[in-house]
Amino acid sequence: MAESPEEIKFNIPEPALRRLPWYLAYIKMLQKNGEEFVSSTQIAKKINVDASQVAKDLSFVAISGKTRVGYEVKSLIEVLESFLGFNLTHKAVLFGVGSLGAALLQDSGLNQYGLKISAGYDVNKDIIGKEVNGIPVYDIKDFAAHQKSNPVQIAVMTVPAEKAQEVAEMVIGEQIKAIWNFTPFRIHVPKDVVIQNTSLYAHLAVMFNRLNEL
Amino acid sequence: MAESPEEIKFNIPEPALRRLPWYLAYIKMLQKNGEEFVSSTQIAKKINVDASQVAKDLSFVAISGKTRVGYEVKSLIEVLESFLGFNLTHKAVLFGVGSLGAALLQDSGLNQYGLKISAGYDVNKDIIGKEVNGIPVYDIKDFAAHQKSNPVQIAVMTVPAEKAQEVAEMVIGEQIKAIWNFTPFRIHVPKDVVIQNTSLYAHLAVMFNRLNEL
Repeated sequence: MAESPEEIKFNIPEPALRRLPWYLAYIKMLQKNGEEFVSSTQIAKKINVDASQVAKDLSFVAISGKTRVGYEVKSLIEVLESFLGFNLTHKAVLFGVGSLGAALLQDSGLNQYGLKISAGYDVNKDIIGKEVNGIPVYDIKDFAAHQKSNPVQIAVMTVPAEKAQEVAEMVIGEQIKAIWNFTPFRIHVPKDVVIQNTSLYAHLAVMFNRLNEL
Repeated sequence: MAESPEEIKFNIPEPALRRLPWYLAYIKMLQKNGEEFVSSTQIAKKINVDASQVAKDLSFVAISGKTRVGYEVKSLIEVLESFLGFNLTHKAVLFGVGSLGAALLQDSGLNQYGLKISAGYDVNKDIIGKEVNGIPVYDIKDFAAHQKSNPVQIAVMTVPAEKAQEVAEMVIGEQIKAIWNFTPFRIHVPKDVVIQNTSLYAHLAVMFNRLNEL
């Protein structure tokens, strides 16, 4: 039992946490439109979630609405951005500067949400020593040394699926604490390492299948 | 009730469908290693799913394992790729050639999984008429005319969150049948339109929060 990753008790359940960025996006839109207050009913209607669920989700971020007027838009944005960690800079490095990896290095939008990728690592001699969007690409062999001089906690994983587990184990051995896994491989990690899977291909599969069945 | 998107009964539940690309990635790795057969127990162990779940998921793709030897690797790969639509080319266009949109146009890996993005659309005069990775960027106003001459069914949505609903309604009016939504906005679609949300920022939020609580 103690080995299970489910053992760690987090303050907020993951489904609630995943909904918060939706609320944030909507409330930021309201702010652009000059709105000052928003109710959980309003959010619920827009996001397709129960109003009671919205109120419960927002209770985790330690903000409470006022009767009749609801939540103050400006402070709700601040509290949400802070709770979600979007207002801080989290340093990360990326493994596997192939097509998807290079594309993610190009996406400076991630910066706005608090993720700053400072280096890429690869085994391909053709790209080692080059830069993508101003971000240097190093030999993966240099990672251990870089971690000693300038440690980061987050690794973005865009290596080929068959290398995912091996590279993950290597980086965890070098004090990486969170892996954002874009490969279709299920990486096994110890319970004190955070893993988030973003499986673009799984989403494509669902889309193709549903289109086919329409 | 008839208005609810949940009304459409699909042959395979979404969680099962989402697991299939994981199995595929693992089985392709086995093939590279020269393996000829794989059991559901083997897959289950690697993917962290119950063996009975694996067998049930694979029953949807109309393949059955043989007692003792399990599934034949080669035919299981073929059947899965075909079921998931990865062996066909699905034409798509992309809306919003900003940072993330341009990055996705750069990712030729999507081609391998059956998605071919043939054009980008934007409102920004600075990029209209240019190409990204050989893919032309057009004025969004030209989309309706293009749909008449060369229709596509899939739209990749990378516009700013506050424009997502408006652009989605426009493209649905022009016969788009599936939207791959990368914006943090919850787009509302009619029940005969497929929507897949890939919320990079929601995944970041979960990662940051969990890191913080470790």
